[in-house]
Amino acid sequence: MSIDPSTHGDAVLDRLARTARLRGPEPLAGRLEDLGAQLAQDVGEVDKALSEMAAARGDLAERAAGHLLHHPGKRIRASCALLASRLGPMAAQAPAREAAIAAELVHAATLLHDDVIDEGTERRGVEAARVVYGNSASILGGDHLLVEALRRVHKTGAPALMSELLQTIADMVAAEAIQLERRGIATQDAPDELATTYLAIARGKTAALFRWALRSGARLSGLASADVDAIGEFGESLGLAFQLVDDALDLDGDPAVTGKNALADLREGKITWPLLVALSRDPGIAAVMQDGGDLTAIAARDLSAIADRIRATGAARETRAEAARHVKEGLRALAQLPDSPARRAFAALVEGTLGRER
Amino acid sequence: MSIDPSTHGDAVLDRLARTARLRGPEPLAGRLEDLGAQLAQDVGEVDKALSEMAAARGDLAERAAGHLLHHPGKRIRASCALLASRLGPMAAQAPAREAAIAAELVHAATLLHDDVIDEGTERRGVEAARVVYGNSASILGGDHLLVEALRRVHKTGAPALMSELLQTIADMVAAEAIQLERRGIATQDAPDELATTYLAIARGKTAALFRWALRSGARLSGLASADVDAIGEFGESLGLAFQLVDDALDLDGDPAVTGKNALADLREGKITWPLLVALSRDPGIAAVMQDGGDLTAIAARDLSAIADRIRATGAARETRAEAARHVKEGLRALAQLPDSPARRAFAALVEGTLGRER
Repeated sequence: MSIDPSTHGDAVLDRLARTARLRGPEPLAGRLEDLGAQLAQDVGEVDKALSEMAAARGDLAERAAGHLLHHPGKRIRASCALLASRLGPMAAQAPAREAAIAAELVHAATLLHDDVIDEGTERRGVEAARVVYGNSASILGGDHLLVEALRRVHKTGAPALMSELLQTIADMVAAEAIQLERRGIATQDAPDELATTYLAIARGKTAALFRWALRSGARLSGLASADVDAIGEFGESLGLAFQLVDDALDLDGDPAVTGKNALADLREGKITWPLLVALSRDPGIAAVMQDGGDLTAIAARDLSAIADRIRATGAARETRAEAARHVKEGLRALAQLPDSPARRAFAALVEGTLGRER
Repeated sequence: MSIDPSTHGDAVLDRLARTARLRGPEPLAGRLEDLGAQLAQDVGEVDKALSEMAAARGDLAERAAGHLLHHPGKRIRASCALLASRLGPMAAQAPAREAAIAAELVHAATLLHDDVIDEGTERRGVEAARVVYGNSASILGGDHLLVEALRRVHKTGAPALMSELLQTIADMVAAEAIQLERRGIATQDAPDELATTYLAIARGKTAALFRWALRSGARLSGLASADVDAIGEFGESLGLAFQLVDDALDLDGDPAVTGKNALADLREGKITWPLLVALSRDPGIAAVMQDGGDLTAIAARDLSAIADRIRATGAARETRAEAARHVKEGLRALAQLPDSPARRAFAALVEGTLGRER
């Protein structure tokens, strides 16, 4: 299988390669290998476009945005759009590439705004753009990328993609606003309420964009409307699973691998699934969390002690189990589609999400 | 002439009423009065939609946005779109209203982000949203309004409006980035360079949205392409004149009337036309401006002394004269359109811009 090592979708592609080797029958393995090679090329082209944007040394907004784009993420949203565009009968590489780039740009735009809101200092293993260029530049950089994303989608000439992306961004902003408002007061809510709030936030801030990327790729490839809905549901589940694993990594991930500050969510008083599990299994934790959960000013040693107590409840394991339940749900939605190499590739992708370390 | 006093486009409408009374022949006065009444109704409907958005007490982003929308501006951008939609042969009230609302929302979105960037404390005569709800809420409020504006324009089903609005927002973000980058170092540049930078910023941050509002209204009313271009050029000139008068008001306006902090631009080290004039007429001013122009930490008395010295050069008067030159240019572009009540109303509007006090 030909995989270009310069691409950053390599985790996805490695998984596809493994799947191709492990699963028979032989002809299918061959088709999966072909698909993996195609996806590697598609992701490579997305990387190229994003690298070009990163290299543009224009005004301060472009430079702040370029700083983030220069350090590529996992390209999971782009991979979703690109792979989905192989589901239907129509060749849709060119517009699907634009949708894939747009998904990455919208994601990057929200990171630039979120890092200002959360006062984050690290992102993708390096200093956050707001540390290098200032908060104001990071705000404008986010605005710049948002507009760039919308322009690319508008140019595809598919009005449904545009209206769904605008709805998606609205959902993302609303989720971030709820998260901001509930920050540091999580421990005051009953466990059920907490779970409801958590899911509303995770759906908006993460799952909505996965859903959009998948629906867009699928729609562009000419998939029937019911199948577009099914792949959208799959995206929703994949996004939730992805967010849950993200939460677990905040607690037990290696910062050198994740590229983020350790325990950042906990410190910022965000509602996470592990915290929610820990609070229900060891109610005493609420008492040691000062001000109901805002730990921004806490000493590192005290934060670490709280994290140990949360870990002791098995919260990270339970969070990955919850992610696995969403993956199972996603696979059920996926099963509504006719069998195809792209569908099998998605099954490999969603299963791989559970084991990711960054 | 029936003018609803509850609307906020009253300055525009008053001017129309005066023009109707002053200018003959009689049938034209009657037609201008009719147009004034129609515009009053159109602006009233825009106000109603914006008030409804202001009243929505949803998440923190909506509330921060609502705080700003609750205190209406001059509605000059909305008036431009609405009046332009009366230029052509087609009835375009419904989509033009959406374009008018979008222009006000984009303007409001940039104010929410700009106030965070400029650390502004007052806006439209009350505390800025970022003071009441925090910087993070103001950032998300801006994102929320931007998406709302784009959704409304997308729903008009006119793709050209959408692509031009996206280009406009890109221009606005770029201009804000240049302004941010050049802040506090204006005095280091040669006068010619300063004027070039100033015009690039003013075109992007102010004129571009005027241009879009006018082109959109005109296009929706079925105006020919050359005439849409002409009204766009008019909008560019009107926007520049508007920005120049804004600059003069920073120096000699009454904060109780403008609703903004006095000398805010000067304090923030922004390039303004009065500063540029003063630097060329009294080069000694550069020496008294510490750190080349960033006066954010200066004592009020010292700031006031610098302002006096700038005023003494006649900078405000010269700035209004520069605005008058752009108005004249705008009227030349307007003269390319066939005569009509709407065209005459625009002439009244652009002349009124020169005399505005807020």
